[in-house]
Amino acid sequence: MEKIVAQGLLYDFYGELLTEHQRRVYEDVVFNDMSLSEIAEEQGISRQGVHDLVKRCDKILSGYEEKLKLVEKFNQTKKMVEEIKELAGQYKKDGDRSLIDRIEAISEEIGKL
Amino acid sequence: MEKIVAQGLLYDFYGELLTEHQRRVYEDVVFNDMSLSEIAEEQGISRQGVHDLVKRCDKILSGYEEKLKLVEKFNQTKKMVEEIKELAGQYKKDGDRSLIDRIEAISEEIGKL
Repeated sequence: MEKIVAQGLLYDFYGELLTEHQRRVYEDVVFNDMSLSEIAEEQGISRQGVHDLVKRCDKILSGYEEKLKLVEKFNQTKKMVEEIKELAGQYKKDGDRSLIDRIEAISEEIGKL
Repeated sequence: MEKIVAQGLLYDFYGELLTEHQRRVYEDVVFNDMSLSEIAEEQGISRQGVHDLVKRCDKILSGYEEKLKLVEKFNQTKKMVEEIKELAGQYKKDGDRSLIDRIEAISEEIGKL
């Protein structure tokens, strides 16, 4: 399950760098939850061919992330923005002004990423 | 000047996908503000060679952005985070509670990007 999530994320970022054929097969595996046999039949290739293609796509996508680290950077930003949202919600409850300073500080930190 | 900024941004995101040689020359042009003649001498290639290399790098980097749109996505996020920072600062001045709602809303929007 976790693997599928990681594959989905990498695909969201770098999927456009795959060929159309690779994308089609990869999407069937990762997003459409199809079995290798089903895809093999649909695409007119062997089951082993589907398996190899998926492994190759995994390698290509991970290779881009290794170089660019954009998924990592985005996740970092999202986590900080999520924190801002929570702080704003908390402030509305307890009115602690230091939460506003914290929101300012986090947004400034994100600006520097 | 604006071109240099755009080149710098694209390079920040996708520069790792260039070869080391391309990176070295491209950095000299875009970040070190060196002249084509200086770089040509330093790298032992012709002035025209430097010119062609830079054009080719521009094309490669723009090609990645055209497909992935990650600079665009990042800029969008940064603009929204900048807005959060301003709203927090403004809230500290005038205490208008609706600004906190706005901060919450923007951070939620970013989470959906």
